[in-house]
Amino acid sequence: MELQTIEWRNNKIKLIDQTRLPDKLEYVYIDNLKSLWQAIKKMKVRGAPALGAAAAWGVYLGAKDIKAKNFSEFSRKLDKISAYIASCRPTARNLFWGIERMCSAAVRNKNKPIPDIKRILFKEAQDIIKEDKASCRRIGYYGARLIKNNDTILTICNAGALATIDYGTALGVIYRAGEEGKKPKVFSCETRPMLQGARLTAWELKHKGIDVTLICDSMAAALMRQNRIHKVITGADRISANGDAANKIGTYNLAVLARYHHIPFYIAAPGSTFDLGIKSGRDIPIEERDAAELTRLFFKNPVGPKGIKVFNPAFDVTPADFITAFITDRGVIRPPYAKNIPRVLGE
Amino acid sequence: MELQTIEWRNNKIKLIDQTRLPDKLEYVYIDNLKSLWQAIKKMKVRGAPALGAAAAWGVYLGAKDIKAKNFSEFSRKLDKISAYIASCRPTARNLFWGIERMCSAAVRNKNKPIPDIKRILFKEAQDIIKEDKASCRRIGYYGARLIKNNDTILTICNAGALATIDYGTALGVIYRAGEEGKKPKVFSCETRPMLQGARLTAWELKHKGIDVTLICDSMAAALMRQNRIHKVITGADRISANGDAANKIGTYNLAVLARYHHIPFYIAAPGSTFDLGIKSGRDIPIEERDAAELTRLFFKNPVGPKGIKVFNPAFDVTPADFITAFITDRGVIRPPYAKNIPRVLGE
Repeated sequence: MELQTIEWRNNKIKLIDQTRLPDKLEYVYIDNLKSLWQAIKKMKVRGAPALGAAAAWGVYLGAKDIKAKNFSEFSRKLDKISAYIASCRPTARNLFWGIERMCSAAVRNKNKPIPDIKRILFKEAQDIIKEDKASCRRIGYYGARLIKNNDTILTICNAGALATIDYGTALGVIYRAGEEGKKPKVFSCETRPMLQGARLTAWELKHKGIDVTLICDSMAAALMRQNRIHKVITGADRISANGDAANKIGTYNLAVLARYHHIPFYIAAPGSTFDLGIKSGRDIPIEERDAAELTRLFFKNPVGPKGIKVFNPAFDVTPADFITAFITDRGVIRPPYAKNIPRVLGE
Repeated sequence: MELQTIEWRNNKIKLIDQTRLPDKLEYVYIDNLKSLWQAIKKMKVRGAPALGAAAAWGVYLGAKDIKAKNFSEFSRKLDKISAYIASCRPTARNLFWGIERMCSAAVRNKNKPIPDIKRILFKEAQDIIKEDKASCRRIGYYGARLIKNNDTILTICNAGALATIDYGTALGVIYRAGEEGKKPKVFSCETRPMLQGARLTAWELKHKGIDVTLICDSMAAALMRQNRIHKVITGADRISANGDAANKIGTYNLAVLARYHHIPFYIAAPGSTFDLGIKSGRDIPIEERDAAELTRLFFKNPVGPKGIKVFNPAFDVTPADFITAFITDRGVIRPPYAKNIPRVLGE
């Protein structure tokens, strides 16, 4: 796959419009913050690492046009831009991480002329892109060591090329295992309500020649009962210092099922998804989204009765003790997480 | 709700077309076996007890036009009709039960003139309708005794008025608890792929004034973790002599989650859903359905990539030891099931 989810092109942010897949591979070009905010909100771009990069380019997009007499004025305006981007979605750690990295780069260089700081911000966003590509490949390298020949892996949502710049976290592990000749097979949970598993994961795995079968989220248990799943691997949106992990709604469901059926449950994520400032999953804010995601299939066909109450959390939290290991860009982290996460990922 | 899912009207089978709900309440009138077969296959009528009644009326629909010189000829033609109806869907016990009841009624009266046998078959189908109504109310009566004031109940698929003649099995329990002033609340799993929970269960509960909230199937675990579910109650399509229960795909998922979270898991079903001729769930045939149920939302919007492999079992089997009790029309059956099911339901 020679696709890149996010890049800077002709003074605009160029994104794959993920709401159009798998029907159409289309790009959107974003030249203002409001459009970026909408693109993130509507999940034209999604996936924690991709959101980190999108946020960083968003900060640059705003910063490049700041008119300021001094750093103090520049910084105030940068903070406003950052706060606006940060207000879009609450759960994924990488969104805030991307913003914070950009702001830190500005602060570190506050004695330089404003045009130089803008150039530094451009470079910082470019670095985030480069680092994400490298990070996914390291995750793939470490994770593939856990995969045996012909393993069948269950995943949910999309933690693939489309959730990152070009390779993926959970799917990066599968791609790498495939490159090593291990012939992994995948069951992709369709991932209601927004169907990232059907639209994105099934699409990119098929595109890459991985043996993939689409199932409804509710079918995972039956497959596990039939001993047809060897491992579960998902991505994450935010991981607290103790190893509790917020990820797409339904992940906790799979974690309970995996434990019951004695199947290893792995989370693949870069260091930037870990939020060491947060003690436990209880402190992770969970976004609730539009009821229409359930009651109108893809906002087209109505399927629920008019005015029906809906509970639509976009994420759930899987407690640390369900997680066999974290596959990170700095190696595999095993329990006890409260000790090992800060040891591997702390400053 | 003054609706009746199935009735005999103007020499035709009159069915609520459940594929049009909740948008439109429309009826189909069926005057030939091929149309009935299609209506069952496409789930215009579904739900184990409703299938029993539909099958019985189907047998009468075919039988009333049989031209035969003697019972032997009549019986051969009746068997052909029965086999055709039985070939439609393999899992729900009631479909076969309805057919068998009709055929037995014919055999019991084989010495009567053919026109009399036809009248007896008409009466037998009418009796099945009447008995279903009474049976659901008894299930409601026994089940409501298990419900406490303000209990929140999770259910999947539709085991309501629309799955029976007019009241429901799992939902019958909830309706009865509501009538007793217990104010039950319900979370309805949308039930992919065919969304019976969103389209049918949420619709009929709301219609009946029950507090209902729609969720995706994958959200049940998060709700249980938050102690927001007090009981799980589902219907069943076939229950073997040892208490293993086939029901809508995703039921086993909920059973594992309920056990892990220490939540009672009940199955509500009439005696006609029990198949005492089958020892265990391993012997229950599981229907696999069209991939397009997953890859095209309601056969309209494409959501999966072209040519993607799909696993689409319509049912799963929940092993007996996950089931706290069966709520039947002859009372609540508790373990050990291998002893108590034949004791309560056997001849």
